[in-house]
Amino acid sequence: MAKSVALACFLGLFLAFAAADHSPLQDFCVAQAGGSVFVNGMACKDPKTVKANDFSFSGLHLPGNMSNPVGSRVTPVTVAQLPGLNTLGISAARIDIAPWGINPPHIHPRATEILLVLEGTLEVGFITSNPDNRLISKVLQKGDVFVFPQGLVHFQRNTGFGNAVAIAALGSQNPGVITIANAVFGSTPDISGDILAKAFQVDKIVVGQIQSKF
Amino acid sequence: MAKSVALACFLGLFLAFAAADHSPLQDFCVAQAGGSVFVNGMACKDPKTVKANDFSFSGLHLPGNMSNPVGSRVTPVTVAQLPGLNTLGISAARIDIAPWGINPPHIHPRATEILLVLEGTLEVGFITSNPDNRLISKVLQKGDVFVFPQGLVHFQRNTGFGNAVAIAALGSQNPGVITIANAVFGSTPDISGDILAKAFQVDKIVVGQIQSKF
Amino acid sequence: MAKSVALACFLGLFLAFAAADHSPLQDFCVAQAGGSVFVNGMACKDPKTVKANDFSFSGLHLPGNMSNPVGSRVTPVTVAQLPGLNTLGISAARIDIAPWGINPPHIHPRATEILLVLEGTLEVGFITSNPDNRLISKVLQKGDVFVFPQGLVHFQRNTGFGNAVAIAALGSQNPGVITIANAVFGSTPDISGDILAKAFQVDKIVVGQIQSKF
Amino acid sequence: MAKSVALACFLGLFLAFAAADHSPLQDFCVAQAGGSVFVNGMACKDPKTVKANDFSFSGLHLPGNMSNPVGSRVTPVTVAQLPGLNTLGISAARIDIAPWGINPPHIHPRATEILLVLEGTLEVGFITSNPDNRLISKVLQKGDVFVFPQGLVHFQRNTGFGNAVAIAALGSQNPGVITIANAVFGSTPDISGDILAKAFQVDKIVVGQIQSKF
Amino acid sequence: MAKSVALACFLGLFLAFAAADHSPLQDFCVAQAGGSVFVNGMACKDPKTVKANDFSFSGLHLPGNMSNPVGSRVTPVTVAQLPGLNTLGISAARIDIAPWGINPPHIHPRATEILLVLEGTLEVGFITSNPDNRLISKVLQKGDVFVFPQGLVHFQRNTGFGNAVAIAALGSQNPGVITIANAVFGSTPDISGDILAKAFQVDKIVVGQIQSKF
Amino acid sequence: MAKSVALACFLGLFLAFAAADHSPLQDFCVAQAGGSVFVNGMACKDPKTVKANDFSFSGLHLPGNMSNPVGSRVTPVTVAQLPGLNTLGISAARIDIAPWGINPPHIHPRATEILLVLEGTLEVGFITSNPDNRLISKVLQKGDVFVFPQGLVHFQRNTGFGNAVAIAALGSQNPGVITIANAVFGSTPDISGDILAKAFQVDKIVVGQIQSKF
Repeated sequence: MAKSVALACFLGLFLAFAAADHSPLQDFCVAQAGGSVFVNGMACKDPKTVKANDFSFSGLHLPGNMSNPVGSRVTPVTVAQLPGLNTLGISAARIDIAPWGINPPHIHPRATEILLVLEGTLEVGFITSNPDNRLISKVLQKGDVFVFPQGLVHFQRNTGFGNAVAIAALGSQNPGVITIANAVFGSTPDISGDILAKAFQVDKIVVGQIQSKF
Repeated sequence: MAKSVALACFLGLFLAFAAADHSPLQDFCVAQAGGSVFVNGMACKDPKTVKANDFSFSGLHLPGNMSNPVGSRVTPVTVAQLPGLNTLGISAARIDIAPWGINPPHIHPRATEILLVLEGTLEVGFITSNPDNRLISKVLQKGDVFVFPQGLVHFQRNTGFGNAVAIAALGSQNPGVITIANAVFGSTPDISGDILAKAFQVDKIVVGQIQSKF
Repeated sequence: MAKSVALACFLGLFLAFAAADHSPLQDFCVAQAGGSVFVNGMACKDPKTVKANDFSFSGLHLPGNMSNPVGSRVTPVTVAQLPGLNTLGISAARIDIAPWGINPPHIHPRATEILLVLEGTLEVGFITSNPDNRLISKVLQKGDVFVFPQGLVHFQRNTGFGNAVAIAALGSQNPGVITIANAVFGSTPDISGDILAKAFQVDKIVVGQIQSKF
Repeated sequence: MAKSVALACFLGLFLAFAAADHSPLQDFCVAQAGGSVFVNGMACKDPKTVKANDFSFSGLHLPGNMSNPVGSRVTPVTVAQLPGLNTLGISAARIDIAPWGINPPHIHPRATEILLVLEGTLEVGFITSNPDNRLISKVLQKGDVFVFPQGLVHFQRNTGFGNAVAIAALGSQNPGVITIANAVFGSTPDISGDILAKAFQVDKIVVGQIQSKF
Repeated sequence: MAKSVALACFLGLFLAFAAADHSPLQDFCVAQAGGSVFVNGMACKDPKTVKANDFSFSGLHLPGNMSNPVGSRVTPVTVAQLPGLNTLGISAARIDIAPWGINPPHIHPRATEILLVLEGTLEVGFITSNPDNRLISKVLQKGDVFVFPQGLVHFQRNTGFGNAVAIAALGSQNPGVITIANAVFGSTPDISGDILAKAFQVDKIVVGQIQSKF
Repeated sequence: MAKSVALACFLGLFLAFAAADHSPLQDFCVAQAGGSVFVNGMACKDPKTVKANDFSFSGLHLPGNMSNPVGSRVTPVTVAQLPGLNTLGISAARIDIAPWGINPPHIHPRATEILLVLEGTLEVGFITSNPDNRLISKVLQKGDVFVFPQGLVHFQRNTGFGNAVAIAALGSQNPGVITIANAVFGSTPDISGDILAKAFQVDKIVVGQIQSKF
């Protein structure tokens, strides 16, 4: 049960953002809903039927529901929510974090992220790749902008007294999100406990306890 | 004089944003200040000297000065302001528009733009390329997101009663901005009046009057 | 009426060229005529049915009809005319300009253009992006080559006594053309006169007069 | 001490591979050793001084040292080892895994990986991004090939009785490696225990125990 | 007859490898078998039906049949054999060469190749483009790695006493192979003998003799 | 001697064209003459010193010298001749072919080519990659356009009574040219006669005779 709750909240939580992957070959190629042909990205609507609403999305002024174990919520605006983004290589998201909540360590496999703090105080950080695994972190205030390079592990934590709100954009219409803990300890099916015990240098019992949470 | 004022305000006004042009070959390549080697994008600092501040920019919570003929101000956060964006293919900007002010028709030659309305009401639009030159426009409210495809003419207008504030991101570390009126009627040196008279189907005297404003 | 004539001539006039946007994944992917699936670029014919004519286009030795307000005609050879260009990132066009005619200021949103003068004398120029808006121009003679960087406003004018002929190539199968005057003053529907009056610093009456021409 | 040993072994372990990031503008651009100019990728040697050895690397027939907590060793052949790879978008590595050893869950931020089993039996798997976090896994035998898509968490485990040997190639001259456990629990400086406790849903004491191993 | 035999062996011989051409817009886009829609690359299976076997290929431990005029065999693992490679920009191949056999001069039009010698001794070389046409060559032993830059003519020859085995990877899901002799002297239909006689500076009779072999 | 003459003519002959390889990060990056820093493409001049002539090249109306064994001459306009092409992914060339002269079979490793016949009659063709090696050819007249896909072997022959003139553009600032006969039979040093004898299925004496011509 704990697993399904946590899973559910992460599902909604990290579906967002955008990454640098486009080279459009026409003015636009609005993603077609319910198409039966699958391609790299998405097939397009007949351009003659395209309307202004295809390039628009509403509701990013509303706070997300932060009642979950990590105390945060990400509201994505990718090609899945805004079909006009197809082939254009960018997307966005709203991030709400309750006091001491976190947007847990995660990776965007196909995008760099740029983040702007709208409200509150956020500690942000990213970790460089092997062998240094250097943590580069900073406390951001309202109006601060920060960039998380493509594919690197990064996180945010609300270190202020009120809710924190940030807007992010990433360089892909569908940047993908890999929440480290969920992917590694909550995959379907599970990764073998032996593997995780050796990787994290802990007892298999501890691995099992963590897996039971996701 | 009118020209220099208008020019000055446009100079500051549209220097911003970011577009999908990167393929990083290392974790990061922070732009080096004052380097003497010019390359596509920018040469980088020695990675050993990189610090968290290289990935950060402050002040985007502050309204820009809208006291100018178009009643708006764009505050850019590109690689020129945030050196950590180098090679990462994304940038951002804050847009302030006074009531009935406009962000006049312009083009980003190297980027798609995604825009989020933080405050107020904005009429936005873009125009498709020849032969249709279709205007696709919509009135956005707080929390609305809109996308302007790469290289297309677009604009925003505040149609509300208070100031409007929007955040934009684009798919380039240096998307470039071409304000149509300024580029066409205010270039240095001027485009010949004969050319503009024929292009805009107006008398050369009208062309000269417009040029005198920029 | 004036509008429809001018529009018509612009329609045919600027539909051409080519831009750097390809990464072919097979020897060729010839665009399929009348396909019902829309993708980035175009879906392809079954490769077994491809013939030499799919890679060919005829008639670029013929002058275009220059009887129109700008005294010029562009004959495009893009993927719409030459289906073998699909996925290959290049296209071409013939430009005919009568004495003192112009190819009015325009932009290719998805392509750099390289131009060769075959006959006559052409003044050419492009304008850099904000804040400099520097006009870089030159008078070209027969045999001269010039390059217009991606997304920048550029134009040509015949400054000789006879017709001028040029060949252009651009780095996209479908570079797109945005004729500034047509897009800004002749869109469907019109951009609000208030916006254009403020953008071009002219009276709304002047805006209306210009709009009536397109 | 345990941390430094484990860290050291991971440092050598995952420095390898290659990813799809190139667009060469000349026949080759061999990386220059000890250059003082930093660019995206690497600056090149004077092409006149290039020799066959610049395109070559020796020693990949030799097993790596697997005496470390995870029982495996990756020997990389990236642009750091083979300067001729610069701008060419590919690299390689040898992977040795002792019986029941693992190549722990990791990510290449800039590359897809293709792997060929030369000797032994390997269980391999990757996990899709949120929200599914589906584990796609398979047991490979000698002569089997498998592909790990760009940026996704993946791992290998030797499930046979003897040593396993595999060859990998990835689509970047410098794909980067992020070993999950090392990056998250062994960064310099440490990520705050509060963050990791919340992310992994464990007590801070457990976090501290894991961190002490890296 | 001689032609058909040689042709047949070359057909199987050089269908392999992979090159840097991808920018995936989702975790994966597994090529759909027997699809009726042709696109750049391949259309994808419904992601819900994807299985681990879609990312796998077996049999690369088996030597290819080298009983043919050039004494070698290439066994390809491209998107045609391993559908999971679609959109991911990489592929692989096994190369078997009998003593004094050759992998004749050829080109991959869409990929750089990295090669690892598993067994035996291989003389390898590539030729730079005009005007230098410099041959860069080296004798490789077991464990040596070599890189052949995109689009350049290259070859391998077994100069040892036993069979040679190598593994190659290239930066495309479908790099293409153009065996020089087969393409130039064995095309269907033939290139005119006049052209080849002039190109190779030989008598047309010699051209005809060579053509009869392919 | 024959070799040096033929070599010399080929050297000048095929140095030209252009390919789709750019993603400019600024308006322009004009190649710097005599720079000491080598990068992918070329380092740039200080943008403040850029002039209109940097984007221009003269003389393409002049016929090339066709007095050589193949009866043709290619006059290139790549980044080496026109520094403004740097980072912009396109180039051009003029091709002159005397009656029954040929532009011998060659490959551009980094570019697709689009060709326009200005004068005369040209038989053109390209050959698909293995296994089909299909010759796709056509006789072009004045005003005809044809496209040669990236990396494929192609050629032109003048089949008319007068000189033929064509203009080509390709999708790279430096597409490279590999004349098959020169690269394979005229490299420095030579490819071993054994290899070529086996590849072309001819006696080593014939190989030696061909090599002596280049």
